[in-house]
Amino acid sequence: MSTDDTTDESTATENAERESECGAADAEATAGTERTCGAGEARSASKASGEAASSASETTSDDSESKCGASAGSSSASTGSSSSTCGASTDETTDEKVGSTVEDFDADPGSLTAVGLGPGQPEGMTARAREALLDAEHVVGYTTYTELLPDEITAAADEVYDTPMCGEVSRTEEAIDRALAGNDVAIIGSGDPNVYALAGLALEIAESKGATASMLDFDVVPGVPAAQSCAARIGAPLVNDTVSISLSDHLTDMPTIESRLHAAAKEGFTIAVYNPWSRKRRDNYEKCCEILLEHRAPDTPVGVVRGAGREDERVEIVELRELPELGETDLVDMTTTLLVGNEDTYVWDERMVTPRGYESKYDY
Amino acid sequence: MSTDDTTDESTATENAERESECGAADAEATAGTERTCGAGEARSASKASGEAASSASETTSDDSESKCGASAGSSSASTGSSSSTCGASTDETTDEKVGSTVEDFDADPGSLTAVGLGPGQPEGMTARAREALLDAEHVVGYTTYTELLPDEITAAADEVYDTPMCGEVSRTEEAIDRALAGNDVAIIGSGDPNVYALAGLALEIAESKGATASMLDFDVVPGVPAAQSCAARIGAPLVNDTVSISLSDHLTDMPTIESRLHAAAKEGFTIAVYNPWSRKRRDNYEKCCEILLEHRAPDTPVGVVRGAGREDERVEIVELRELPELGETDLVDMTTTLLVGNEDTYVWDERMVTPRGYESKYDY
Repeated sequence: MSTDDTTDESTATENAERESECGAADAEATAGTERTCGAGEARSASKASGEAASSASETTSDDSESKCGASAGSSSASTGSSSSTCGASTDETTDEKVGSTVEDFDADPGSLTAVGLGPGQPEGMTARAREALLDAEHVVGYTTYTELLPDEITAAADEVYDTPMCGEVSRTEEAIDRALAGNDVAIIGSGDPNVYALAGLALEIAESKGATASMLDFDVVPGVPAAQSCAARIGAPLVNDTVSISLSDHLTDMPTIESRLHAAAKEGFTIAVYNPWSRKRRDNYEKCCEILLEHRAPDTPVGVVRGAGREDERVEIVELRELPELGETDLVDMTTTLLVGNEDTYVWDERMVTPRGYESKYDY
Repeated sequence: MSTDDTTDESTATENAERESECGAADAEATAGTERTCGAGEARSASKASGEAASSASETTSDDSESKCGASAGSSSASTGSSSSTCGASTDETTDEKVGSTVEDFDADPGSLTAVGLGPGQPEGMTARAREALLDAEHVVGYTTYTELLPDEITAAADEVYDTPMCGEVSRTEEAIDRALAGNDVAIIGSGDPNVYALAGLALEIAESKGATASMLDFDVVPGVPAAQSCAARIGAPLVNDTVSISLSDHLTDMPTIESRLHAAAKEGFTIAVYNPWSRKRRDNYEKCCEILLEHRAPDTPVGVVRGAGREDERVEIVELRELPELGETDLVDMTTTLLVGNEDTYVWDERMVTPRGYESKYDY
């Protein structure tokens, strides 16, 4: 699963996935919890965290042992709490709880900004995302992404809080608690905060705490989604009507996913398939291939892009008929995005091209 | 149509749209051609365009009067040719032709890069897009976008070629000819080159010229699509499986669009509707509203975002039942993107939230 660490914006789904697997691992190896689970880590930077952060620690330290990440700025507490949560998650669900509410914070709230990093490397970030991160006092994110941040950003932050494995719910709550404690907080993920990512979870948790988006001056800074980063690597596979579907049934049941795949494949949409494969979801991948082949020709081009724009990037254009056998290869995992062509898509000079229809209107 | 000038990456569709309207205008007013149609304009910058460009002028000057954009670096020729094309397009189709082929160019080909600008403003651009534009010798694009480029980029370019109205086919051919003539060319559009944009057209025209993508070192630099820019303005409307559909039937017939709308609305996808309305497509908009209301509750939240992130931006969250009457208002035009919620989407604190399903797995 280490390859999952180079994931796209399906981070949310993947962390949820990881969370349960993490729990499973824990069930197998009792000593495994401390080692494998999301030990939240707060790396204090040059600047002092300031009074607000301290007040957060105070207001939440009482129950910081019992839940993930509700204690702001405390490495040890976060570690202990993250671990306890992960250790407890021995099946599909977890017992992560949102403990603190807006009532627990006496400071004037700071701000919460969900920032999309795009493909992950600094050059894939928008200038606006960079500015938002430079302005943030606390940057909260999955370790893989905080490690991708340029030094200028981590240096400018009072604190960078990251969790290496499980816990997007606790990490998101941590970010909200830090904002409620008076800090300007950026919560980051690759891709775009609206594509299988944390913008929604942040609002849901804020609401559950009795906070409001306005109170947190909640903002979203969009980023380049994985579908676009991957499409760019193989030409022009998605220039017409397109569907994005995730094969993770952790948060959406499989019958719904299958029904959506049938509808999309029937209607000539190009299809971006997120989270196509994991050890626990071999069947979903096989079912997806089966459904696509039911509606599309076996020679339909499919772009397979793993870790778009990363050092370990792999890009291949295959035929739909070849897809099933790729499920067990390291080309297809949670970090891979599949770009399925429609009836008109063709391969030319190692690029995938889905015509827009100009050829029917113009003479060229 | 002036509002169309602040369009998102549906540029391709819109230019096609404009083209035909431009032709129609021309049919009404014979003198209108020169005034309203795509008079390609090449603004020479400080640096000389170089030998390659000159050679292109030579190799294509013979028939530069008779077709759009095949003459590289020649303002007058481009102007004349663009006009002649637009004047000729008096109905839905145009007679734009790709005249020159790879054989017409004796220079070593330069490069062609399709660059997505994102929402349009410099801060919405990725660092990679900025670098690609700074590296380009020629920047080719729709006037609205070339005018949005930071001075450092237009100053660094040998030449900026833009067409103010009709002609994405001729503009794209112009870009390819300039690349075949030995220039490093960037063709720009807002949003992402893979979302209703020019990445595909560039490859189609390159092929029709007997060129290859490899010969042109063709590359795509992704950008933030309008769906993501607009979603960010209203919270988290698209965090689950999503469909993007364009209501322009210029390149996709209406029965296909309707069938796709039915399928998407039936399957609980959130839906990003591009190019929702234009004078010539009132019916498409009405039909779309009708189909959505057939499958979704009248109180389904719909985000209506016009000119996301622009000075004239307008953002509203309405109920699906209100959508039909908005068709004739200036809130909905070709630059508007509609974000239609699914069955679970709700409005909270002036944000649209589409739950991912965490609430079914976590206690918060």
